[in-house]
Amino acid sequence: MDPASLGWQQLPVWKERIMVNEPHSASSGSASSRSEGSSSGSESSKDSSRCSTPVLDAERHERLREKMRRRYDSGDKWFSLEFFPPRTANGAVNLISRFDRMGMGGPLFIDVTWHPAGDPGSDKETSSMIIANTAVNYCGLETVLHMTCCNQTKEEITGHLQKAKRLGLKNIMALRGDPIGEEWEEEVEGFNYAIDLVKHIRCEFDDYFDICVAGYPKGHPEAESYEADLRHLKEKVSAGADFIITQLFFRSETFLAFMKDCQAIGITCPIVPGIFPIQGYHSLRQLVKLSKLEVPQEIKEVIEPIKDNDAAIRNYGVELAASMCRELLDSGMVSGLHFYTLNREVATTEILKRLGIWKEDPRRPLPWAVSAHPKRRVEDVRPIFWASRPKSYIHRTQEWDDFPNGRWGNSSSPAFGELKDYYLFYLKSKSPREELLKMWGEELTSEESVFEVFTFYISGEPNGEGHKVTCLPWNDDPLAAETNLLKEQLDKVNRRGILTINSQPNINGRPSTDPIVGWGPSGGYVFQKAYLEFFTSSENITALLKVLKMKKYELRVNYHIVNVRGENITNAPDLQPNAVTWGIFPGREIIQPTVVDPVSFMYWKDEAFALWIEQWAKLYEEESPSRMIIQYIHDNYYLVNLVDNEFPLENCLWQVMEDTFELLNCPTEQ
Amino acid sequence: MDPASLGWQQLPVWKERIMVNEPHSASSGSASSRSEGSSSGSESSKDSSRCSTPVLDAERHERLREKMRRRYDSGDKWFSLEFFPPRTANGAVNLISRFDRMGMGGPLFIDVTWHPAGDPGSDKETSSMIIANTAVNYCGLETVLHMTCCNQTKEEITGHLQKAKRLGLKNIMALRGDPIGEEWEEEVEGFNYAIDLVKHIRCEFDDYFDICVAGYPKGHPEAESYEADLRHLKEKVSAGADFIITQLFFRSETFLAFMKDCQAIGITCPIVPGIFPIQGYHSLRQLVKLSKLEVPQEIKEVIEPIKDNDAAIRNYGVELAASMCRELLDSGMVSGLHFYTLNREVATTEILKRLGIWKEDPRRPLPWAVSAHPKRRVEDVRPIFWASRPKSYIHRTQEWDDFPNGRWGNSSSPAFGELKDYYLFYLKSKSPREELLKMWGEELTSEESVFEVFTFYISGEPNGEGHKVTCLPWNDDPLAAETNLLKEQLDKVNRRGILTINSQPNINGRPSTDPIVGWGPSGGYVFQKAYLEFFTSSENITALLKVLKMKKYELRVNYHIVNVRGENITNAPDLQPNAVTWGIFPGREIIQPTVVDPVSFMYWKDEAFALWIEQWAKLYEEESPSRMIIQYIHDNYYLVNLVDNEFPLENCLWQVMEDTFELLNCPTEQ
Repeated sequence: MDPASLGWQQLPVWKERIMVNEPHSASSGSASSRSEGSSSGSESSKDSSRCSTPVLDAERHERLREKMRRRYDSGDKWFSLEFFPPRTANGAVNLISRFDRMGMGGPLFIDVTWHPAGDPGSDKETSSMIIANTAVNYCGLETVLHMTCCNQTKEEITGHLQKAKRLGLKNIMALRGDPIGEEWEEEVEGFNYAIDLVKHIRCEFDDYFDICVAGYPKGHPEAESYEADLRHLKEKVSAGADFIITQLFFRSETFLAFMKDCQAIGITCPIVPGIFPIQGYHSLRQLVKLSKLEVPQEIKEVIEPIKDNDAAIRNYGVELAASMCRELLDSGMVSGLHFYTLNREVATTEILKRLGIWKEDPRRPLPWAVSAHPKRRVEDVRPIFWASRPKSYIHRTQEWDDFPNGRWGNSSSPAFGELKDYYLFYLKSKSPREELLKMWGEELTSEESVFEVFTFYISGEPNGEGHKVTCLPWNDDPLAAETNLLKEQLDKVNRRGILTINSQPNINGRPSTDPIVGWGPSGGYVFQKAYLEFFTSSENITALLKVLKMKKYELRVNYHIVNVRGENITNAPDLQPNAVTWGIFPGREIIQPTVVDPVSFMYWKDEAFALWIEQWAKLYEEESPSRMIIQYIHDNYYLVNLVDNEFPLENCLWQVMEDTFELLNCPTEQ
Repeated sequence: MDPASLGWQQLPVWKERIMVNEPHSASSGSASSRSEGSSSGSESSKDSSRCSTPVLDAERHERLREKMRRRYDSGDKWFSLEFFPPRTANGAVNLISRFDRMGMGGPLFIDVTWHPAGDPGSDKETSSMIIANTAVNYCGLETVLHMTCCNQTKEEITGHLQKAKRLGLKNIMALRGDPIGEEWEEEVEGFNYAIDLVKHIRCEFDDYFDICVAGYPKGHPEAESYEADLRHLKEKVSAGADFIITQLFFRSETFLAFMKDCQAIGITCPIVPGIFPIQGYHSLRQLVKLSKLEVPQEIKEVIEPIKDNDAAIRNYGVELAASMCRELLDSGMVSGLHFYTLNREVATTEILKRLGIWKEDPRRPLPWAVSAHPKRRVEDVRPIFWASRPKSYIHRTQEWDDFPNGRWGNSSSPAFGELKDYYLFYLKSKSPREELLKMWGEELTSEESVFEVFTFYISGEPNGEGHKVTCLPWNDDPLAAETNLLKEQLDKVNRRGILTINSQPNINGRPSTDPIVGWGPSGGYVFQKAYLEFFTSSENITALLKVLKMKKYELRVNYHIVNVRGENITNAPDLQPNAVTWGIFPGREIIQPTVVDPVSFMYWKDEAFALWIEQWAKLYEEESPSRMIIQYIHDNYYLVNLVDNEFPLENCLWQVMEDTFELLNCPTEQ
């Protein structure tokens, strides 16, 4: 991840020229979400169509240009992040984790650059297409895919665009790209300039894509003049581009002057300044050379003396960028900032935090991470089982045409895709084998040593060898803040072989803005039923079942108990889902985004049991005692889920556990 | 309603004979709603189909024979009620009210007799077909339509059955009917016996209808012998009948012996004893003559001396029937009782109450009265506006193929049927014009005199002329128990010209078994947002709007304000419904059966404004001052609905009203 080792194509340098002029009305529709105080005749109200899902989060239904317009109208500040595709599969795993972490800060979008030499439209895990696909579908990020057009046939370009659309990508940054060879000739029928690509997209895909184009605050280096370049930019917009991201620059005045000039010649679409935080001496030098930009003297003077001190240069770069950003925002002409991250996290995050536009606690539109695929816009309910494996859930439901819509039961029992390949890069654990062995035990001696792993994961304390257990096969992250509320009880039951993998406390109407359990728009109330899911031995199951059939739990607790062979014991009404998370909002229908669904539980149990083998047992040699212990658990334990329906009362599931332990201690009493 | 004036056909006498024997497996499927403790493989669970709506009330999805079977299995006692079609349109209005009242007691079904001479399959409001249709669709009663077959062509019979199916009728009592003339000959190809009709139904309509046939505890009078008659009955069952209702009898031993004999020859379907409470001397005599039954000596001895004392006879009849019913129930062989009501209410209700099987407070499956049309089984959400006019709502949505399913917004804006004919008998007010004038004023002198009518309706006190106002054009019944909770505040605002027509208090999680606000299965919690709907003058609207825009209400209260011309002011999010009643139940999804829906509100306002004219203004002479006052209100007032979204806090809508009045009192302060 040394920026000096990056190919130049991975730096934000675009080469292009604008040629053709053709009127095109870029329709940047601004959607007003509330008809407050509006007066409309009855006929029109009657005839209007309704949304199929409650618009809890208007942005889920908006195009990027609409979201951007909304922020320009409201004056809310925002940012976006540019990444380039990694060179290795391991790099892809790390980049996806970075997407997840940087996604927490609330970027309006990210973009992924396009590298003609790197097979960018292929299915390789390092291709631009697949990285963008992963960002949209698995990380839930609004994503812009770069695309260059020179030296490509119309068919190739159309093929890329069709694939992008199929994958759920909705935004294209249309670029010319580097010509091959020193001299290059325009092809009469070909794609010579970005505007050709803009026109082609509008012609072949109508208004499906939002299109971004590049702007040059100092004029394109190959342009006849600054003025000619401005006219080319206007032509790109007229041809159908929705917004502009600029090349990097070193002084806020440069951008502000450019923006005024754009406005003066009638460019009205959003223009987003491209911010390049200086992160190293060499990357700066090479960038400048390629982009033909001149580094201002005052910057050179600071940098030259510290050129071998990476930390010092980065600190300076953060300082410099933050102060330029502040000037831009203060100008009143800029509400969004685009960051060339160079795939690095620290500098950009630091700048955003200093500017106060990194959202420390972004409001969750729903209790689970939404996907940004347009098909999944209507998705508003998921089974609780995949709570810690949302990417697996998305993967296994990616072929669905229809999402459980308003009610899980509405969807006619869709089949979940198989999860055979646990090594898909976007599903892969962040930890390598050696780390996993340190956490989960180089050698297991008994079932109890497995109990200990769970207990260390819950407690957060280091294990006997001094390693913290930060993940389990079913949870790639440390305990959620919400689960922390249950820590003490979880610790207690795991010690006794109740191996918990998922749980939530009951909530009887907390404000939707609650920092831990809140979700959805403000002014609402959220509710939960207590939930507990765990593996345990058949001896424990026998006692548990006796307890669950006691009068005090019989009508109160719903249970599903299943082993790897699918032998299933339940007291749930026929295949009906049980809503375990719901929210009540002003002027809305009730939203019930999380359910315990008996049908999907049978799919989940296959995955949950398989994770014992795929992620844990396979760490050990075949026939080794450690492996046989995990295999034994896989073959003989049961997976259990429990719901306490009495959400207004104290969670009784811990008492169920207590009663079970008591029964196990004194088996003759029952 | 003097039973002595009834045509004989209206008495429960069936003439028929059983002839043919053909095996038919009557599939009386017994549905078990809980798979408690059941063990099933994962594959089968995965493949099972789901219900499209949460099965809150399993019975809504069951056929009559399944409901009956469920009660036989559980031992729960039940009853059913037989009615005959009225002779006049007025009689139809009264009968529908009676259905509503007697429906409160929780009959398993009602049945409507078939009168070949009375054009029973026509569209007349007094036809058997239309009365049964009204019972099913508008009163929500499981209904059995009688049908006779002799002297009718196959085409006529098929036509009747098709019509019944189209109207949502699901159960037929297949009878022979009276032959015309003294002597009658069997037609070779025709319908000579009830069994022909049973076979025809099964042949033409497969398993669509549940079929009932008649049984004769003493043997059919025309049968060769008691034994031959039993064999005929068995043949009818084998041909496809699902259950048997018997002719009346006077001693429990008669029925119990008959039942044993039926079982002995292999009749296994339910056999329901027909109970005839003696309600008058003449009706008994005529019935006995026609049915060729002999009245036991001990009954004759009691009745003869009191034959001119109707009350004494009725009291005796109640006593006699109740004691016979008790013997039947105590035998352990009987769980259901079928009552020949003769369209009268008191005797049957009294017997049922004495037996303890009249449900004083039947649990409501949903907060509104469900319809029994099979198409509406999935209906689980309605707009609140028609809360007091459920029959009108059903009428206006009867053409819908699809009901808002799980979410109001799912239904793609179905058009509501027009409500032009306010005189449809099932929508008609129970009170005649003279009574309405007494309640609503023989003469109105000002808008204030209209305010008073509303105030008297709310308070329940008699008006100046000493008449209680028991209904309003928007409410055909006195205040609901729930609305009574708001009485004091409603009284106060109506005096000031806030003419309330619909309201509900807020409820923050009351048990679903709450006698006033509860609904749905036990073990759940119900919630409501406070709601208030009223007409008021434009002066009041101006002040109200100022109040609603105050900060403390702005985000808390949703409003829709509309006049007769459809001019519409709202702060609701775009056409989204606001759920105002919902329930959380063990092991279920959340149910949200009542919404404030902006689209349907525009349809409701047409109806709500029209009621001023159709039901009130038209009581007065054209051009009369009274009529002009109502017309003025119709033309100038606004219809307002308010929802307080803060269901956990104290209802703020009364404070909104207070603030509005204050503003009106001191207009300069604002």
